[in-house]
Amino acid sequence: MEGSAKSFYQSPGCCIQVSRIMRPDDANIAGNVHGGTILKMIEEAGVIISTRHCNKQNDERCVAALARVERTDFLSPMSIGDVAHVSAEITYTSKHSVEIQVNVMAENILTGAKRLTNRATLWYVALSLENVDKVVEVPSIEYESSELQEEGRKRYEAQKLDRIETKLRSEDIILPAINVGVTMKLMDEVAGIVAARHCKTNIVTASVDAINFHQKIQKGSVITVSGRMTFTSNKSMEIEVFVDVDHVMESPKGKASAVTAFFTYVSLDKEGKALPIPMLKTETEDEKRRFEEGKNRYLNTKAKRTAQVQKGQ
Amino acid sequence: MEGSAKSFYQSPGCCIQVSRIMRPDDANIAGNVHGGTILKMIEEAGVIISTRHCNKQNDERCVAALARVERTDFLSPMSIGDVAHVSAEITYTSKHSVEIQVNVMAENILTGAKRLTNRATLWYVALSLENVDKVVEVPSIEYESSELQEEGRKRYEAQKLDRIETKLRSEDIILPAINVGVTMKLMDEVAGIVAARHCKTNIVTASVDAINFHQKIQKGSVITVSGRMTFTSNKSMEIEVFVDVDHVMESPKGKASAVTAFFTYVSLDKEGKALPIPMLKTETEDEKRRFEEGKNRYLNTKAKRTAQVQKGQ
Amino acid sequence: MEGSAKSFYQSPGCCIQVSRIMRPDDANIAGNVHGGTILKMIEEAGVIISTRHCNKQNDERCVAALARVERTDFLSPMSIGDVAHVSAEITYTSKHSVEIQVNVMAENILTGAKRLTNRATLWYVALSLENVDKVVEVPSIEYESSELQEEGRKRYEAQKLDRIETKLRSEDIILPAINVGVTMKLMDEVAGIVAARHCKTNIVTASVDAINFHQKIQKGSVITVSGRMTFTSNKSMEIEVFVDVDHVMESPKGKASAVTAFFTYVSLDKEGKALPIPMLKTETEDEKRRFEEGKNRYLNTKAKRTAQVQKGQ
Repeated sequence: MEGSAKSFYQSPGCCIQVSRIMRPDDANIAGNVHGGTILKMIEEAGVIISTRHCNKQNDERCVAALARVERTDFLSPMSIGDVAHVSAEITYTSKHSVEIQVNVMAENILTGAKRLTNRATLWYVALSLENVDKVVEVPSIEYESSELQEEGRKRYEAQKLDRIETKLRSEDIILPAINVGVTMKLMDEVAGIVAARHCKTNIVTASVDAINFHQKIQKGSVITVSGRMTFTSNKSMEIEVFVDVDHVMESPKGKASAVTAFFTYVSLDKEGKALPIPMLKTETEDEKRRFEEGKNRYLNTKAKRTAQVQKGQ
Repeated sequence: MEGSAKSFYQSPGCCIQVSRIMRPDDANIAGNVHGGTILKMIEEAGVIISTRHCNKQNDERCVAALARVERTDFLSPMSIGDVAHVSAEITYTSKHSVEIQVNVMAENILTGAKRLTNRATLWYVALSLENVDKVVEVPSIEYESSELQEEGRKRYEAQKLDRIETKLRSEDIILPAINVGVTMKLMDEVAGIVAARHCKTNIVTASVDAINFHQKIQKGSVITVSGRMTFTSNKSMEIEVFVDVDHVMESPKGKASAVTAFFTYVSLDKEGKALPIPMLKTETEDEKRRFEEGKNRYLNTKAKRTAQVQKGQ
Repeated sequence: MEGSAKSFYQSPGCCIQVSRIMRPDDANIAGNVHGGTILKMIEEAGVIISTRHCNKQNDERCVAALARVERTDFLSPMSIGDVAHVSAEITYTSKHSVEIQVNVMAENILTGAKRLTNRATLWYVALSLENVDKVVEVPSIEYESSELQEEGRKRYEAQKLDRIETKLRSEDIILPAINVGVTMKLMDEVAGIVAARHCKTNIVTASVDAINFHQKIQKGSVITVSGRMTFTSNKSMEIEVFVDVDHVMESPKGKASAVTAFFTYVSLDKEGKALPIPMLKTETEDEKRRFEEGKNRYLNTKAKRTAQVQKGQ
């Protein structure tokens, strides 16, 4: 304790650990903690550490807003009664953004068993508290080696490209930090309903593709979260989720698309073994096209994973 | 991060840190976080670390149940937006109980300012998961010195005496772990309503006297929490809080007293300065007696604090 | 109020009082507590007192399930920081059902001001805990006078007629108690969104028409709550709300209608004065018919209220 507590208080800017017991409300009726609950905890750890960092050298008070979450895999299910330990650290800073890497461990406090359940990478930008439309500069971190810095720079460039692509499809403004965790939790809930309806079994989140946040959600707005199944493989389902924002009391009125994302779900039997998934029936041309696109994403991910395994990662 | 994470994972039994951003719902309308919110986080950290410890050498799976909280002072108010860091460590074990000491720090992530807001001491016993009426043995911890062990033993004997005293007034069975944090939060809420009614100002919890838990609260029971003001000094109010349990669906039916405790509140102006408290009017003999008893508790606490200051603590 | 509280402590079986401070999450952004929050508290008080009563003389453990809520008016808005006092008492029992009358008072604990905000009447039936499809008998209460009993019998017959009418439109099974409060809260939330979209102002619940519950909602089911505006008068809007249940993992599959209800909303300016409502545009034959039906309900309610005022109620 002493060592850990000391190093924490000596360099509080670099890291944070958020821990919490998983309750019945965090899980489905089979006792598996919702992927959305875990995404919400990840985002909370991210916003604490990045807000703390951005205020270090700035005279202007600021708050971190989530701009992007990289693809996240759920490696192992978490259960009611487990303690989730979410630890976050800053791994890269550009002029205007912060990269946060987060690890989630599940601890069974009865047996002492611990296992890694998630690794996630989040990108935040800093918004001025006085004017939330103003992006402020982010203090730089020190790197242990120039290689680490160079790898970070490459990740930064790669995600920037992907964000620009999405930007073409929507305005580039950003969700204020406070809503994002809740929004991701709702997105997972909607995806889970679509998946459960399709296979009538116990389903759990297997992964979430990268999500870019572009649209500010104001207090008093109504958000509508909807989802549709796009693809099924033998053992997994892909669900596309949409978040629309309706600025009920503000101009310009009308709905705007805030976020879209792809969730992948698997179906588990009572022993936690993956069950086969009934194939998605496609009828219209659009459905067939979406199925093919989903298949491509599925095969790409599979190929990347095989490559990583061969590289020994 | 590496260092901190490593030392955490190397000795995971000894300590835990639970961190969370304070939200509007955690606070009163003046933005001060409720004492009850903090008590609930303290209890959660305590139950994690003591349940983890009790299962270390036992073949019988068990869960820690709170038996007693020592007197707790609220040293500094916490606000919405602060990050609360609750860190807990095991400081003593007897054959059947575990002493947990908890520190609560408030961090303003905008300014980087940190301050100690609470120190608390909790006593847990371990109950068998197969039979929650069975108390199981607790593995012993190692002490850095025999002095530390001896001091722990003295604290153990002192709290045991106090618990035996309360035991005479009620049955000695214990609340299951899961309800206690919520119960303490409700107790603080009731005390706060009594205090606000008396002085019509912004009030905050200043301290909670030692609380002993004696009565099991079963799933589906109805608990009734009530409070009355017992004493006022120039700058503080004492409120006595009662928790009664009604086993609606179980025999024996009827209400039973589960917990009583004394909360002390102060009234703050907009700059956070303590305001004078209108004197409590007493009419009946009982009210006068309770006022005198409250006065004695107040003077005793004051004398102890003066002694501690003189000893340099 | 005084009387009610006193009689509560004298005979704890007959009545209950549930009190709670209203928090930011209980209210809209203008600080007005949602009607749904209040309905949920009313239902919680009702389920406690009726479950307690049903277990009094039964050997078979049972739980009370809400069958019907009579029309409820929201007499006065409640605000964040107010303490809501919900008191419930049993006013009639038939062989299989219990009538509960509930009063809600709002107390401003800073000024001491108290006002009645709601009166509600709820009907519960008792379901066996061993077999929730089995309705068990309810112990009879004692009446202060035979007139009171006779008036109760008349209310019982009247609500039975109305329930039979709805029964013809759907199956006569009943929601398990645990979900009903949450369902009513969601219904109010949906109605509120429809109302806010229509007038882009601060809107509050003015009344809810009688609601009958007919369809059991099982654990793991997906409920879909939807709403549409049916009628506008100069100062009020009527919204029809539908609850559909999708037994995702059970047969028979497919959606079933569980509840429908009419909510009336008003729009308030910053001083809490009612604003004029833009008239609802109707185009299709169905919309015109629904508008006429809503107008009839509106005029009926108005006529009843005028009659009550003339009778001195």
